[in-house]
Amino acid sequence: MLPALPHAPIRSSTISTVIEYLALGVGAFAGALAVRRDQRYHYDWIGVLGLGMISGVGGGVTRDIILQQGVPLSFDHPSYLTCALGGASLALFFGSVVGARVQRFIFFIDALSLGLFAVAGATRAQDAGLAFLPCLLLGITTAVGGGALRDVFSGRTPAVFERGEPYALAATAAAATYLTAERLGLSPETSSTLGSAMGFLLRLLSN
Amino acid sequence: MLPALPHAPIRSSTISTVIEYLALGVGAFAGALAVRRDQRYHYDWIGVLGLGMISGVGGGVTRDIILQQGVPLSFDHPSYLTCALGGASLALFFGSVVGARVQRFIFFIDALSLGLFAVAGATRAQDAGLAFLPCLLLGITTAVGGGALRDVFSGRTPAVFERGEPYALAATAAAATYLTAERLGLSPETSSTLGSAMGFLLRLLSN
Amino acid sequence: MLPALPHAPIRSSTISTVIEYLALGVGAFAGALAVRRDQRYHYDWIGVLGLGMISGVGGGVTRDIILQQGVPLSFDHPSYLTCALGGASLALFFGSVVGARVQRFIFFIDALSLGLFAVAGATRAQDAGLAFLPCLLLGITTAVGGGALRDVFSGRTPAVFERGEPYALAATAAAATYLTAERLGLSPETSSTLGSAMGFLLRLLSN
Repeated sequence: MLPALPHAPIRSSTISTVIEYLALGVGAFAGALAVRRDQRYHYDWIGVLGLGMISGVGGGVTRDIILQQGVPLSFDHPSYLTCALGGASLALFFGSVVGARVQRFIFFIDALSLGLFAVAGATRAQDAGLAFLPCLLLGITTAVGGGALRDVFSGRTPAVFERGEPYALAATAAAATYLTAERLGLSPETSSTLGSAMGFLLRLLSN
Repeated sequence: MLPALPHAPIRSSTISTVIEYLALGVGAFAGALAVRRDQRYHYDWIGVLGLGMISGVGGGVTRDIILQQGVPLSFDHPSYLTCALGGASLALFFGSVVGARVQRFIFFIDALSLGLFAVAGATRAQDAGLAFLPCLLLGITTAVGGGALRDVFSGRTPAVFERGEPYALAATAAAATYLTAERLGLSPETSSTLGSAMGFLLRLLSN
Repeated sequence: MLPALPHAPIRSSTISTVIEYLALGVGAFAGALAVRRDQRYHYDWIGVLGLGMISGVGGGVTRDIILQQGVPLSFDHPSYLTCALGGASLALFFGSVVGARVQRFIFFIDALSLGLFAVAGATRAQDAGLAFLPCLLLGITTAVGGGALRDVFSGRTPAVFERGEPYALAATAAAATYLTAERLGLSPETSSTLGSAMGFLLRLLSN
């Protein structure tokens, strides 16, 4: 069973912390890779790094700006930003040699992080005393916000809103499962695991 | 005479509360309808609901994020989000049978809500102790921000900035009328009514 | 030597205040001018003024929203907004007669303000207790955020992320120079001057 509360460093244990950093770095890596391969625009290295970092931390930053509980986690704990910068840098330097195996690994981590981020966002919103619907929305925002912001800042329609994109649906299911399990009286650990697993499975199945 | 202070639940009375929720729901409905009818992109139901909700509450959330007075109203009072979700859902399920009469009703409520939101935004900024120009800008932001964000997140140039769009002008006039009336010593109720009426009339006339 | 701390009114002296207002106004002027000359879209005067003001204050507002230290400076001190509105208005009324000499002046002030804003943003982030990397990012955000937001709200891919755009690089160098000089024990005044000069020179050289 996964320990609870990624993105909330106080109560998280070692395994969830490792997963969380992996998810952030992979998010930034995948975002930077997509930007690097963009055929319509030509981004310099600042663009690849900047848009990669936005992909990695943008969702959490948006959530924290809405929650108004002080400086966003990523800015308060620079290790998050460093991790995102590291992921984006890897894509910048080694993006051209990324093969099918790395792509599969990225897809796997990406699916894992989708559920984790949705649950983490809903948890933070719950800790701030918000109701079910706001918690659900902030869970979705955490999971899909980074990619949506990257799309907006690279001149595209956010894929998350377009038909056929299974991201938002999986994030919604993950956050809703977690919040419902919590309300049904399950422990935070069980609820987090159920929610994250739901997001992970839906993302895998919808491929 | 309209009671003062839509969007500020503490001091608002029944009539203004009803109008306010109607405005939010209609804003989300109209936004979702526009997204649903978009010919260039195909949005799934998540996209229609998400962009509809952004249309309804996006302006107020942006204002509250700038004012930094805690969690945005829409997230603190989930009935706002529920109302926006309801409006967007109506557009999702019944959007194909929306006829001319409903369109006229939407246009009417939309014109009404434009002035109300501009005045409400300026009022909130005033309550936070801001000066005339910032209050004016936050009034405009409240009224037109949701539509602008929906446009950005659906890959369009925000209509509010393009020539011929009477929205921004009506919102500016509504907020400026309210703020000037207040400074001239009129009661908040009278000032709110004058501002809202100004926005409403300008929007009707510019059609 | 330049006095320290533009954008932080408490400690700034007369010269830096003058430069700061000049930079804000020129930023809004240049932004409004670009919008006014846009061939693809036709903006009315509200669009020119709105997008001009976003160009001028958007970077600082974004930084302050992330820092969560209360209402953004521009909204708390309306003279900033007034200055941006003035710059945008000048572009609106006299944009058609802007000749080569004014263009050179704009370019010069723009290059100057790039470094100043990057240093000012990094300084504000430092005052909020943030670490090196977040300070660097918020310095860059302050310098290039206004232009990026203007691009997004006028339906373009932010130029700052595209290849060949020297803005982001100069802003990065300015903020990094300032932060490094501070950490090496130089006085705030010397560090600010070094950082601003670095941004200025790189922007001039890259033209």
